[in-house]
Amino acid sequence: MQNTIKYIHQHLIKNGKTVSTAESCTGGILSGILTQLSGSSQYFILGVTTYSNRAKVSILKIPASIINKKGAVSKDIACLMAKNIRQIAKTDFGIGITGIAGPTRATQDKPIGTVFIALADKSKTICKKFTFQGNRASIRKESALKSLQLLKQILNKKVGP
Amino acid sequence: MQNTIKYIHQHLIKNGKTVSTAESCTGGILSGILTQLSGSSQYFILGVTTYSNRAKVSILKIPASIINKKGAVSKDIACLMAKNIRQIAKTDFGIGITGIAGPTRATQDKPIGTVFIALADKSKTICKKFTFQGNRASIRKESALKSLQLLKQILNKKVGP
Repeated sequence: MQNTIKYIHQHLIKNGKTVSTAESCTGGILSGILTQLSGSSQYFILGVTTYSNRAKVSILKIPASIINKKGAVSKDIACLMAKNIRQIAKTDFGIGITGIAGPTRATQDKPIGTVFIALADKSKTICKKFTFQGNRASIRKESALKSLQLLKQILNKKVGP
Repeated sequence: MQNTIKYIHQHLIKNGKTVSTAESCTGGILSGILTQLSGSSQYFILGVTTYSNRAKVSILKIPASIINKKGAVSKDIACLMAKNIRQIAKTDFGIGITGIAGPTRATQDKPIGTVFIALADKSKTICKKFTFQGNRASIRKESALKSLQLLKQILNKKVGP
């Protein structure tokens, strides 16, 4: 993980790019990692942990009707988290994470470890679905780590957006 | 730390109380810890990592004039972070943390490790100043841990508010 965060750190500073995060199941772990290195204030502008649906509505301006229709753990919500935090924080990149870290709240469609990670830039938003194994702590950690890897790939232009 | 978080978890659930966080130097580590346990969504509503002054102004509604006058790392800003996040998230308790995790940005008045931690409830806001030793990682971790201990004390009614 340290190599990934160092790469992101150097790339964002070198290119004058900024990032913001909207987390749910990871609870702030991703923003904690993105601010690990001295100088991260040059690119990390804002992180929010919208743990409640109420916060997703009031802070991230996600319509309650979409949360009710699609579920808080869904591709649509992850995409809106990424898009909206990017706009709110006025950053180049926005990351959204929503998932089921467990051990409760699994559904038939969405077992424990189901996590949606979205990345938005000015032109596109991509979202990937993962099913992580393990316990609550490892699912949360894996989700944050995977987000960093996706950001690195995007900075590398290996995937969209 | 695990005993402290378990105590907070049980106390908040038992008493139907909620909490929100506004972090700067800790970068989301505190919200990450407060969401460690399954069921934390019953009390953890919203966490923000307002790493930039811009985010402190736009998200936490802290006047730029006060940041300019007092400095982002100050008792006044920690208090406003705690008070304002509590109001924004509509929670019983709000926690604000701002400090210098280093290794840069120390001033003559504020050496590396200077951290202000504030706790607000509906009637009062208290703020404590700490000077933690160690490196960036340990200062950030200590700051989050101390915040948890303060919250525990307040839940225990050992200190104000």
